[in-house]
Amino acid sequence: MHAEVIAIGSELLTPFKQDTNSLFLAERLNLIGIHIAFKVLVGDDRSHLTQVARAAFERSDIIIFMGGLGPTEDDLTRECVADALGLEIHPHPEIIAELYKWFAARRAPMPKNNERQADVIEGAEVIRNPLGTAPAQWLATECNGLPRYVMLLPGPPRELKPLFETEFMPRLRRVLPPAAVARRVLKIAMLGESVADSIAAPIYSQRTDVQTTILASGGEVQLHLLATAATQEEAQHRVDSLADDLDDAFGVNVFSTEGEPLEQIVGYHLGMRGLTISVAESCTGGLVSERLTNVAGSSQWFLGGAVTYSNDLKTKMAMVPAKMIAQHGAVSEQVAQALAAGIRQACGTSIGLGVTGIAGPGGGTEDKPVGLVYFAIADERGSEVLERRFPQHDREWIRRIASQQALDLVRRRILS
Amino acid sequence: MHAEVIAIGSELLTPFKQDTNSLFLAERLNLIGIHIAFKVLVGDDRSHLTQVARAAFERSDIIIFMGGLGPTEDDLTRECVADALGLEIHPHPEIIAELYKWFAARRAPMPKNNERQADVIEGAEVIRNPLGTAPAQWLATECNGLPRYVMLLPGPPRELKPLFETEFMPRLRRVLPPAAVARRVLKIAMLGESVADSIAAPIYSQRTDVQTTILASGGEVQLHLLATAATQEEAQHRVDSLADDLDDAFGVNVFSTEGEPLEQIVGYHLGMRGLTISVAESCTGGLVSERLTNVAGSSQWFLGGAVTYSNDLKTKMAMVPAKMIAQHGAVSEQVAQALAAGIRQACGTSIGLGVTGIAGPGGGTEDKPVGLVYFAIADERGSEVLERRFPQHDREWIRRIASQQALDLVRRRILS
Repeated sequence: MHAEVIAIGSELLTPFKQDTNSLFLAERLNLIGIHIAFKVLVGDDRSHLTQVARAAFERSDIIIFMGGLGPTEDDLTRECVADALGLEIHPHPEIIAELYKWFAARRAPMPKNNERQADVIEGAEVIRNPLGTAPAQWLATECNGLPRYVMLLPGPPRELKPLFETEFMPRLRRVLPPAAVARRVLKIAMLGESVADSIAAPIYSQRTDVQTTILASGGEVQLHLLATAATQEEAQHRVDSLADDLDDAFGVNVFSTEGEPLEQIVGYHLGMRGLTISVAESCTGGLVSERLTNVAGSSQWFLGGAVTYSNDLKTKMAMVPAKMIAQHGAVSEQVAQALAAGIRQACGTSIGLGVTGIAGPGGGTEDKPVGLVYFAIADERGSEVLERRFPQHDREWIRRIASQQALDLVRRRILS
Repeated sequence: MHAEVIAIGSELLTPFKQDTNSLFLAERLNLIGIHIAFKVLVGDDRSHLTQVARAAFERSDIIIFMGGLGPTEDDLTRECVADALGLEIHPHPEIIAELYKWFAARRAPMPKNNERQADVIEGAEVIRNPLGTAPAQWLATECNGLPRYVMLLPGPPRELKPLFETEFMPRLRRVLPPAAVARRVLKIAMLGESVADSIAAPIYSQRTDVQTTILASGGEVQLHLLATAATQEEAQHRVDSLADDLDDAFGVNVFSTEGEPLEQIVGYHLGMRGLTISVAESCTGGLVSERLTNVAGSSQWFLGGAVTYSNDLKTKMAMVPAKMIAQHGAVSEQVAQALAAGIRQACGTSIGLGVTGIAGPGGGTEDKPVGLVYFAIADERGSEVLERRFPQHDREWIRRIASQQALDLVRRRILS
C-alpha cells in the first residue's frame, strides 16, 4: 500500500518555486505506516492533469492532490479528478451559500466564478477550510475493483498542513490497517559523514527492525530512526534501544537525542547552570550571535557580542592588545584567546567565546590559508583554544561550519 | 514542445530530501525557450521507474532523468529507460577500461558491480563525468514517430549542473529551433506584495511580449522578466524596455536591476563613496552584521558591530546612557538613535546603524508589542530614526524583515 502526491500549479514548474508540502506529507504518512511511491508536479493544464490523475488511480492506493482548488479558470483539480475517475461534479448548495456569506461579511460582491469552489465530486465528503475559501474533499472510491482514498487539498502550506493533520490523518487512520510507528532523531556535531557512518553502520545494520537514515550538512550529522511494529510500545522500544546504542557509541559527540538545534542545546546547558555568555567573532561576522539569539528566551543567558571585523575594533571592543595583533596576526591562537578573555571581561559574563579566521575567498596565504579558524573559550576555569583547518569551500559554508564548531566547543566545555 | 524531468531515488520520497536540480534545469531550459510540463519523483523500483519512463516518452519531447546511475543494484535508470524505449543496453569496453584505471589510480580493487556503470543504451552517446565515475548519456530517438531527446544525468547537483551546462545545453541548442531569450530581475525593498503588484500590474499587463513573475518574501519583492523573440537583440530590447518602465515606476524602491542581494548593493554604495559602517543591533541579534559580512571583501567598508542584547551592554559597547534606557525603555526611538551615534563614535566609522525592537515570542506589551522595531542612522549629516510595527509572525521572520529594513534604510540614506 503506498501513496502518490500530486502538486498542481504552473508556478511549480518555474525556477522560482519549490513544493515543500510533500516533505510534510511524507513525514505524517510515514507515521501511519504509509510511504510515498510517486510525486508528480504538473501545471494548470486540463489534459496534463487528467492524464496524471488517471495514472495515479491505476497505480496508487492513496492519492493526494494539492492546489488548483481556487475560483479561477486555471483551477482545474476538481474537474480533472472527477473526469479521471469517470465521476460527475455537482455544485454543493450549502457551500455556495457559505461563499456568498463569506464575501458579504467582507462587504464585497462575490464574483460569479467563485461558485466553482463549491463543485463537489460525486460521493466525496466536503471538508471546510477555516483558513481559506476553497473547501477540501475526501473520497473513498475504487479503481479496477481496488480501494482508492483520494484527497483534494488547498496548495498553500498554511492551509494544507492544519487541514491534513486535523481532518485527513484521522480519516486515513480509520480506513487503514492500524500501524504503530515510532521515531527518534540523534544529532551529532563536528564528525564527518563517513566517520559517523563507520561508527553507526555496524550498530544499525544489525537492526533490520529499524529504518535508519543518515543526513549530513554544515558540521552536523543526523541519524533518523523509524520503526514500525505491532504495538506502539514495541515500536517505541525498538527506536529507543537503537538510539541508546548509538548514543553510547557516539558519546559526547551526540548533542541532541530529540532533534533540537545546537544553539538551543547550548542555551539549555547555559540556562540550567545559570551561566551567561558573550561572543567576540571576526570571520563568522555575527553568525554565532545570530544563532544564539534566535533561541526564544536567549536574553536570559546571552548578554552581548562584538563583531570585531577590523583590527582596531578587536582592540577597542575586546581589549586585544594591538601589539599582539601586530606580532601574531589577527588570525592566531593568541588573538582568539585574547578575544575570548576580553569580551568576557567587557561583558561580565561567565563564558567568553572568541572566533577569528579566514572565510575567503580572499585573504588567505600559504601559511594561513582560507578555511583556517581559531576558536577560544575563557571561563572561570581558565581558557581553551582550538585550531581548525576547514576545506576551502565557499565563504558561506566556512562561516556556517565555523559557527557550528564554535557552538559545539561551548557545549563540550560546559559538559567537561 | 516541452520537457519532463524525472528524479530517481527513494530518498527523494522521504521527509528529508528535496530535489533542487529541477529548479536549475527549469532556469536553463527556459533560456532556450523550453518549459517543463511535468516533474516526477520516483524511487529505486524497477516497475515504477519503467512505468514513469514509458509515460514520459509518450507525452514529452525532452526527457531528463536524474540519478540512479551508480554501481549498485539499486541503480536502475539505464535498464529501465532502455526497457521503456524497447532498446538494448550494451557494456561499453572503453568505459570499463576507464573505470578500472580510475580505481587503479586510487590503488583500490574495483568491485565487479562497478561495470554496470559502463552499460550504454543502444544508440546513446556516452558523456564523461569529470566529477564522478558514472558517465552521463544523450540519446536522440523516436517514440510513435515523434522525436525524443533523452538525457541520463547523475543526481548530485555538483555533478549534474556543470555537465548539463557544458554538454547537454549545446546539444539541445543544436537540435532545437533557435530561441532568443532574454531575462532581467528587479528587486524592490520594503514594499508589500499587493502594493508592488498594484504598481507593476498596469505596466506589465500591457506588455504581453514579456513573461512576468512576481515573488515576495522577507521584505523583498522580485520582478522576474523573461522574453522570447526572433532575435537576441529583440528579446533583450523587450525585457530592457519593460525593466526601464518598472524601474521608473518604483523609483528609489528598486535596489537592484541585475538580481544582486541587498547587502551586496549596500556594500557597493559604501565602497564607491569610500564610506565605512558599524552596527549596534539588539533584536536582530547579529543578523545585520552577518548579512553585511557575508559579502566578499566587506572588510573594506564594514568595521565592526555590537550585539547589545543586555541593557548594560548597550551602555558599555555603544555608550547609550543608562538613564536614557531607564527613562524611555530599551526599545525606543531615543535608544535606537543613541545606539547609532554611540557605535559610530566607538568604531570611528562614517555611518552608525542602530536597531532595537521586540522579536518575540515573549517581551511584548500593549504599548510596545512584538514586532515593534526602531531603526536609526547616524552620519556626518546628523541622524534619522524610523519606527516600524511588523506583523506578529514568528521570531525568525521578524528578525529577517528587520534586518532587511535596516539595510534598506542605510541604502536610502546613502542615496538621499
